[in-house]
Amino acid sequence: MQVLIKRDQLNHAVQHVLKAVSTRTTIPILTGIKMLVTDEDMTLTASNSDISIECSIPFEEDGEEIVNVMRPGSIVLPARYFGEIVKKLPEDTIEIDVKENFLIQIRSGSSEFQLNGLDPEEFPRLPQLEEEKVFSIPADILKTIIRQTVFAVATTETRPILTGVRWNLHNGSLSLVATDSHRLANREANVETSEDLSFENIVIPGKSLTELNKILEDSDQLVDIVITDNQILIKYDKVLFYSRLLDGTYPDTSRIIPQSFKTEMVLNSRMFLQAIERASLLAGESKNNVVKLTSRPGEEVEITSNTQEIGKVTETITPASIQGDEIKISFNAKYMLEALRSIDSDEIKIGFTGSMNPFIIKPTEHDWITQLIVPVRTN
Amino acid sequence: MQVLIKRDQLNHAVQHVLKAVSTRTTIPILTGIKMLVTDEDMTLTASNSDISIECSIPFEEDGEEIVNVMRPGSIVLPARYFGEIVKKLPEDTIEIDVKENFLIQIRSGSSEFQLNGLDPEEFPRLPQLEEEKVFSIPADILKTIIRQTVFAVATTETRPILTGVRWNLHNGSLSLVATDSHRLANREANVETSEDLSFENIVIPGKSLTELNKILEDSDQLVDIVITDNQILIKYDKVLFYSRLLDGTYPDTSRIIPQSFKTEMVLNSRMFLQAIERASLLAGESKNNVVKLTSRPGEEVEITSNTQEIGKVTETITPASIQGDEIKISFNAKYMLEALRSIDSDEIKIGFTGSMNPFIIKPTEHDWITQLIVPVRTN
Repeated sequence: MQVLIKRDQLNHAVQHVLKAVSTRTTIPILTGIKMLVTDEDMTLTASNSDISIECSIPFEEDGEEIVNVMRPGSIVLPARYFGEIVKKLPEDTIEIDVKENFLIQIRSGSSEFQLNGLDPEEFPRLPQLEEEKVFSIPADILKTIIRQTVFAVATTETRPILTGVRWNLHNGSLSLVATDSHRLANREANVETSEDLSFENIVIPGKSLTELNKILEDSDQLVDIVITDNQILIKYDKVLFYSRLLDGTYPDTSRIIPQSFKTEMVLNSRMFLQAIERASLLAGESKNNVVKLTSRPGEEVEITSNTQEIGKVTETITPASIQGDEIKISFNAKYMLEALRSIDSDEIKIGFTGSMNPFIIKPTEHDWITQLIVPVRTN
Repeated sequence: MQVLIKRDQLNHAVQHVLKAVSTRTTIPILTGIKMLVTDEDMTLTASNSDISIECSIPFEEDGEEIVNVMRPGSIVLPARYFGEIVKKLPEDTIEIDVKENFLIQIRSGSSEFQLNGLDPEEFPRLPQLEEEKVFSIPADILKTIIRQTVFAVATTETRPILTGVRWNLHNGSLSLVATDSHRLANREANVETSEDLSFENIVIPGKSLTELNKILEDSDQLVDIVITDNQILIKYDKVLFYSRLLDGTYPDTSRIIPQSFKTEMVLNSRMFLQAIERASLLAGESKNNVVKLTSRPGEEVEITSNTQEIGKVTETITPASIQGDEIKISFNAKYMLEALRSIDSDEIKIGFTGSMNPFIIKPTEHDWITQLIVPVRTN
């Protein structure tokens, strides 16, 4: 294999596939990036136990030559070193020349590297997916609905299924749910699907979605999504992003979300967020980070927090509207902050059904997002 | 004590003195910031075992009222919480009201904090320095000469005196030296001193100088420096910065720096820096990060590094000029990178006296800086 390639385009592709490189693995080949060069195509691939990423590099872009193939071939490059080297090479063009015994020569200007590569035949093959269940969604919307749910997945493996985000699709409506059993995030979105496609209980690891979101850009370019029994494939620009799915049945969360409320209030998002941020300042080392919300009809809403030895804080907010019973409820400030930051809305609506029951937070402008928080019992 | 104060000016002063707050201390009062308000003056003070910082807040700035004293007094505030609270309070103006039992009430808009303070009488008093040895230097130059030397101090306590930077002053010329015995940084600068001031063997902890540099700005405002037997006081803007000095005699480094050379070369700083950066990429986990420089008369300069199992790299640089014997020398790339980054010059001069002897790096434009590196023995 011998090829001349523009540094910036190579670097861009390397940074994408690096997200799938295992840093801690007992399988040496998975610390590498596979580079495949044919007369028509150049691709980089990396894989770990959760995700695989393949990124292709066009031979030409805007009339400029990006790749010049002198001798097709393939090689597995040591990912970590290769990524750093490509970033720092001195000239715009890089020559990669693979000699015998997988010895890689990289030249750029006055700089020359020789790296020990690995046998590309040993690199795991990507799954061949039957493209039965396919739908499309703009990249920026996919990025948004992932961001608005993925923070709520469980981070411990006590119930592995909860470390994923559950995707359902019915009648062109995609529904994402994540919960760690203390809070829940739900997001609905319309998607483009040519046929009468539907699926249920597709659970994608939260970590995979977090990595995917680093690749997706805020563009309205359509992303194609292929779902199979145990894999999801996301096709975006020059990237193929594969993730395994989680085994098991995701719990039915539909009945957890209350539909009617004893107390409802509308608040300015930014003011409420900042009040919660301040109220949580004194929580200090205490893990639970509990703040208390108190509201009496006709009065202002109060957020308080009291940490013995340090002190206490009282925040007062005038709600835009409030109705129903008085309420006194305690919750984890971190959950509230994450929920509020995920809702891109100037005003939010909070609905309570009593101080011992989960409550929900929604934007006032639409019904696409529901955030739910389970309160903390205090005396 | 009761006072109204502008948030931004208070925050600015708090961030300064926070640099002297102990995060890990067995003395509770040192986790605090002392606030003292008189009818003429408002100051914040913090202290740890190495440094003390006092910052005053003017009552008026550009015709705008900054501080409005309702009742003078003093209090010790819990530094960590107070710093976070001040940053996040909602309104431009903050009211601080100290009640009985050192209870502190902080109010801003709809936000109210109650913090438990500590007795200001227990706060350690700052040293009263006899201002005998005083000299002045512009803030930006002080900041520069500290940056150009402090990185070379020892970070281990094997020889505690080497964790400091040694300052000498003779005939209006200030000389700073730092060494960890593997490399040495020397910086000279002219300072303003009214009388025939001179001192020797003033050794200031590297950590103190690093904190001082976070406060100093790139301005030509004069900084007054007071030296006593065991303290240094730096007066800058509204800040008094005290540091203890290190006990002991700093080693005589004057004879270590070679004055004549067997090989001398002039190189482009940026190109040499980037070549060393690339050559050190393959060093990987190896701690020593050794690269080899080879130069033969009439040929280009070569930088190489070879890490078994990973690969090797060869960098070629055309020197602007070169004279003397051929040289083959190995050194720690990290030391070279730090030395090069400290020299603000387009071209550098390197002087060798043989492959087993320390070599020096200097800017071509002036003689104020000398960086010295001890080579690594390789076979």
